[in-house]
Amino acid sequence: MKNNTFFNLIKEDVQSSARLGEIHTSHGIIPTPIFMPVGTQGTVKAIEQRELVEIDAKIILGNTYHLYLRPGMEVLHHFGGLHKFMNWDRPILTDSGGFQVFSLNDLRKINKDGVKFKSHIDGSSHIFTPDNVVDIQRTIGSDIIMVLDECAPYPSSPQYISKSIELSLSWAKKARERFISTMPKWDKPQFQFGIGQGGVYPEYRKQYIQQMNDMDFDGYAIGGLSVGEPKEMMQEIVALSAEHLPKNKPRYLMGVGMPEDILNAIENGIDMFDCVIPTRNARNAQIFTTRGKINLRNAKYKFSDELIDENIDAYPSKNFTLGYLRHLFVAEELLALQLASLHNIAFYLWLVKTARENIANGTFKNWKTNFLNQYFSKE
Amino acid sequence: MKNNTFFNLIKEDVQSSARLGEIHTSHGIIPTPIFMPVGTQGTVKAIEQRELVEIDAKIILGNTYHLYLRPGMEVLHHFGGLHKFMNWDRPILTDSGGFQVFSLNDLRKINKDGVKFKSHIDGSSHIFTPDNVVDIQRTIGSDIIMVLDECAPYPSSPQYISKSIELSLSWAKKARERFISTMPKWDKPQFQFGIGQGGVYPEYRKQYIQQMNDMDFDGYAIGGLSVGEPKEMMQEIVALSAEHLPKNKPRYLMGVGMPEDILNAIENGIDMFDCVIPTRNARNAQIFTTRGKINLRNAKYKFSDELIDENIDAYPSKNFTLGYLRHLFVAEELLALQLASLHNIAFYLWLVKTARENIANGTFKNWKTNFLNQYFSKE
Repeated sequence: MKNNTFFNLIKEDVQSSARLGEIHTSHGIIPTPIFMPVGTQGTVKAIEQRELVEIDAKIILGNTYHLYLRPGMEVLHHFGGLHKFMNWDRPILTDSGGFQVFSLNDLRKINKDGVKFKSHIDGSSHIFTPDNVVDIQRTIGSDIIMVLDECAPYPSSPQYISKSIELSLSWAKKARERFISTMPKWDKPQFQFGIGQGGVYPEYRKQYIQQMNDMDFDGYAIGGLSVGEPKEMMQEIVALSAEHLPKNKPRYLMGVGMPEDILNAIENGIDMFDCVIPTRNARNAQIFTTRGKINLRNAKYKFSDELIDENIDAYPSKNFTLGYLRHLFVAEELLALQLASLHNIAFYLWLVKTARENIANGTFKNWKTNFLNQYFSKE
Repeated sequence: MKNNTFFNLIKEDVQSSARLGEIHTSHGIIPTPIFMPVGTQGTVKAIEQRELVEIDAKIILGNTYHLYLRPGMEVLHHFGGLHKFMNWDRPILTDSGGFQVFSLNDLRKINKDGVKFKSHIDGSSHIFTPDNVVDIQRTIGSDIIMVLDECAPYPSSPQYISKSIELSLSWAKKARERFISTMPKWDKPQFQFGIGQGGVYPEYRKQYIQQMNDMDFDGYAIGGLSVGEPKEMMQEIVALSAEHLPKNKPRYLMGVGMPEDILNAIENGIDMFDCVIPTRNARNAQIFTTRGKINLRNAKYKFSDELIDENIDAYPSKNFTLGYLRHLFVAEELLALQLASLHNIAFYLWLVKTARENIANGTFKNWKTNFLNQYFSKE
C-alpha cells in the first residue's frame, strides 16, 4: 500500500472496511469519510457560502451539465472559474454532466464519440465528449473532475451493460489521455476520478475496475447505483467494488444517500458521498435529526417547543423550535427553506464527522449500531 | 417641549424639520429616524434573525392580521409571544391589522363596533374591534402597538373621509381606553400609537390630529398615505401632519417608501418608516445601491465584476458581484432572494443611519441633495 500526495490513508478500521483518510487539494484538505453538499448551479440551494464554511463543509459538488448551460462557459471563463464566480475558496468536485444528460434529456443521441443532447432550458443542441468534458471542467476549475460515462438505467440486461461498459471504458481512456495532455487553466492542480460502471453484475463491475485501475486515476467513483435497484443489491456492489479498488486512492459513491446508506457504505470502505436528499427533502419540510426524520407538515409539531436538534452545532438547529419551523413551512416562508436546508446539511456533516471520530477511536461499528437504533427508534 | 421616558428628542435640524431621537423600549433603544424591516408572518422574508442583528436592524414590524390568522393566537400564547416564538429579542412594532383587512378582503363588513372579514387563507369569519386588536397585540407582545383604524382608499370624497374619520376617531378612543385599562401579558412594557387619517384633506388631517393628541398616545403615525395619491400630495400631507403633531413624541409614516420618499419625509420631520419595497423588490431582482437602482434581469450585468455595493457593510454587498447575483436570479436559485433581500434591507438601514449621522452633524440637507444626485445620476 502506497500513499500518494493526493490521498493519505490514515487508518483502517479493524472491525469493518471503514477507513480514515485525507484528500489534499490546493483549496484545502478534505478529511474522509466526507459528505459533499450539492451546489448544482454555483450555489448549494438556500445556503450562503459563509454558512457552508460555518458548518465546516470541506468540499462542495457542482454539476457540469448545469454550469455549462448556465451561467455558461463564457461567463465562467470571464470570472476565472467557479471558485471566484461564487466566492468559494474551498475544494469543488464536479461531475461529468453525463448523469444529467441521461436523466434530463429524452432526446439525447449517444455514439462512440460522445452524446448529443438538447438543453432543458432553451432546447439548443450540444455535444459532450470525453475530451470536451475535461476541458469544461478545466474552465470551471474544479479540484476534482470526473470522466464522462454512461450511467445505465436499472434494470438493464447483461447484454446492454456489456455494451455500455465498453463505451464508458473507451471514454474513460480518452478522458484520461485528455487530462494528462492538458494543463489546469487557473494554475491550481486538478485531479481526475474514473467512474466504475457495470450495473448490478459483479463480474462486469470487477472487469471494469481492473481496466480502470490501469488508467491510474487519482481516485475512483462507483457510479450507476442508487438508480432504483434494491438497497441490498447496492450495498453488495459497493462492498465488492471497494474490495477491488486500490487502497491508496479515495473511493466515491455517487448520489448516495440516506444517512443509513452512507453509514453502511462507510462500513464497506467508501470515502466520499454526495446527494441532493438533505437539501431537497429540507425544501419538502423533512428534517434529519439525531432522533430520526421529522416531517414538519405533521400537525403534532404545531405547539412543539423542542429545538430542531441540540446535538447539531448549527444556527437553525440550536436556535429555533420545531413549532416555529413548522409555522414557516405552513406560511410558505422562504426562511423555512433556508433554516431546514442549513440544518440538514449540518446534520449530514455531523454524521460523517462523527463517523470519522469513531473510526479514529476504533469504535465505529458500535457507534453506528447505537446511532441507527436511536435514529430509527421512533419509526 | 417635554421629553418623556419613551421618546428622547436629541436634536432638531436648523435647515429643515429633520429630527434626531431615541425610542426606549424594554427590548432596546431605537435611534430615529429609523427604518423598520417588515416581518409579516414572524420572519423578514428570506433573512435570518441573526442577519437582521448583523446589519443592526433596531426594530422590525409584524402584521397583526397575518399573525392572528397564522400561526394564530393559541400558538403565540403557547410560545409566550412573538419575540420568543421567532427568537428575536429586539423591539417589534405591530400594525393593527386594519390595513390588511381593507386591502386583502373584498367581503369585509364594517360597522361602528369593528370590522368583520373572511380569512384569505381558509375563508373563515373573524372580527377585529378596537378592543380585541389591543388584546391580540398584548398576546403578540409587541413593544409598540397600533390602534385599529379605517384606511380610506384614494381617491375618496370629502364626504366619505368625513364619515371615515369619525369612525376611526371613535375606535382610537376605545383602543386607548382598552390599552390603559389592561396590562402587558408578558411583563414587558408596551406602548401605543394613534394613527392620523383624513385623506388628502388638510383640514381633516388637522382636526384628526388635534383630537388624537388629546388621547395622549405614546406616538403618532400618519396613515392613509402611499395608497395611490400623487407624491407631492403625500409630502404636503406629511409636512402638515408633522407640524401639528407634538414634538416630544415619535412620528411614524406608515408604508413609505422609496429611498427618496424616506429622505423627503425625514426632512419634513418624520422619525419612523416601514415598507415592503426593499424585500419585495429584491425578490423581483431589483437592488438598491448607493449608485442607484439596478435591475439584475438586464443582460448587461451578465459579465459584471462590480460588487453589489462596496459602501454597504453587509455580507452580500461586499462579497458578490452583480454578475453572480444576476446568474442566481436567471437560474431561479433561492440564494438570489436571500442575498438581494439582505442587501436591500442593509441599504435601507444604511440610508437612515447616514441620515442620522448627518442630522447630528448639521449637514443633513446638503448630504441629502448630494446623495440623491448620485443615486439618480444613472437615470
